[in-house]
Amino acid sequence: MSGEVILYGDMMSQPTRCIVWFCKLNKIPLKFENIQLSKGVQRTKEYKAKMPLGKVPLIEHNGFLLYERYLGATFNVAEPWWSGDLKRRAIIDQYLDWHHGGTRIAAQMIFAKVMAPAQGINVSGDQLKTSIGKLEFALDTLEKVWLKNDEFLTGAKPSVADLSAVCELMQLEMIEYDIFKNRPKLEKWYRSMSKVEHFQEVTAVFQKVSALFREKNRSKLIIEITTIKHWYIIRVISNRTKTEKAS
Amino acid sequence: MSGEVILYGDMMSQPTRCIVWFCKLNKIPLKFENIQLSKGVQRTKEYKAKMPLGKVPLIEHNGFLLYERYLGATFNVAEPWWSGDLKRRAIIDQYLDWHHGGTRIAAQMIFAKVMAPAQGINVSGDQLKTSIGKLEFALDTLEKVWLKNDEFLTGAKPSVADLSAVCELMQLEMIEYDIFKNRPKLEKWYRSMSKVEHFQEVTAVFQKVSALFREKNRSKLIIEITTIKHWYIIRVISNRTKTEKAS
Repeated sequence: MSGEVILYGDMMSQPTRCIVWFCKLNKIPLKFENIQLSKGVQRTKEYKAKMPLGKVPLIEHNGFLLYERYLGATFNVAEPWWSGDLKRRAIIDQYLDWHHGGTRIAAQMIFAKVMAPAQGINVSGDQLKTSIGKLEFALDTLEKVWLKNDEFLTGAKPSVADLSAVCELMQLEMIEYDIFKNRPKLEKWYRSMSKVEHFQEVTAVFQKVSALFREKNRSKLIIEITTIKHWYIIRVISNRTKTEKAS
Repeated sequence: MSGEVILYGDMMSQPTRCIVWFCKLNKIPLKFENIQLSKGVQRTKEYKAKMPLGKVPLIEHNGFLLYERYLGATFNVAEPWWSGDLKRRAIIDQYLDWHHGGTRIAAQMIFAKVMAPAQGINVSGDQLKTSIGKLEFALDTLEKVWLKNDEFLTGAKPSVADLSAVCELMQLEMIEYDIFKNRPKLEKWYRSMSKVEHFQEVTAVFQKVSALFREKNRSKLIIEITTIKHWYIIRVISNRTKTEKAS
């Protein structure tokens, strides 16, 4: 594949991290252009001329503009991260298809607990309850469906599907949300994925911001979630403050 | 491709319609197994053994169980509905990727206005307002981004992306939601797509149920939507009843 590949992204964005990770694992050289989301660079006229949806990531290759899927197909990346086998590729696609309405729910929680308060947006208790319900359902589906028979989401070997999912779920560390309770397969899978080469460097920026955020937000709500079939009973146990924790 | 392809679906489901349409256009023979959603067949133990997510559609081929993406890849369907060209396929994938958080919002409106009332579920005014805002934004994105330069969503020719989008948007006929106001490109595209071969037979069941529903629900709210940048001002103009309309 000739010609430079430019990735426009922000390492705080989970799909950006996923692509950078994927490229590092498959030795695809990237030129990284930082589109700092917190400064609204994605909404500038200049960037929107390239990416009218105003989102990251964006991939540019010999003037061809596109996002994520391009890489696997064009670079003919093979096992394990992508596949030349039609069935395995279809299974990877199947997970990526579900990902949007499933694992991506984690982003709603981050919006409600991190971004909305920072932007002065009010998220009602009902909205939060709905997001938690959806997230718990997605986490259960990961445990009981996607990881039911195999160690990874799309079979015995990890794939780009697993990279996408980990980049998404790791966001929840920021709000110290326990995703592993009663989910031993998910925990085992997550531990395996966080040992994959390049994980540390790809997630370094996020980890740093996440640690800072946790430090500043010890006054968060502690939430207990009980599951009864498909209903989630959510109970606020305490509104732990920094002082309380220190005492 | 040898071996029978079984499609488990319900013609009231938009992704089911999309696959049936795609197969008819590409002369892929299907055995159709009706999984009647209104009777909850998708939640039976028997069906969930095949499809643990409890959803339709599901494709079975020589014991291999999967949903939608499989067909394009395995049957090597070529232009225009799928493509052997990597770039065009990547563009189709790009739309399908956006579809989940974009055009699929139409389903939220159908839930709020059709399914929730039928099931006695309360949808608050705030939730409805949020859904309308997201839908209007998605429709604007179709008009201004996806259809900006071409007559179809992924280029000068239609593809499986267009089939997916039409199957989704046509749901809104049920609640007589005007998707075309100030969107001439969307209207032109929709008219072209509804002239594509097999459209009538694929949508027949839905059209029938939709007409019955409209007949029974003339007492619906008439909503006016004004757009100011990214904000949608929603105003209930009248609560038109069947009697009022008849008079």
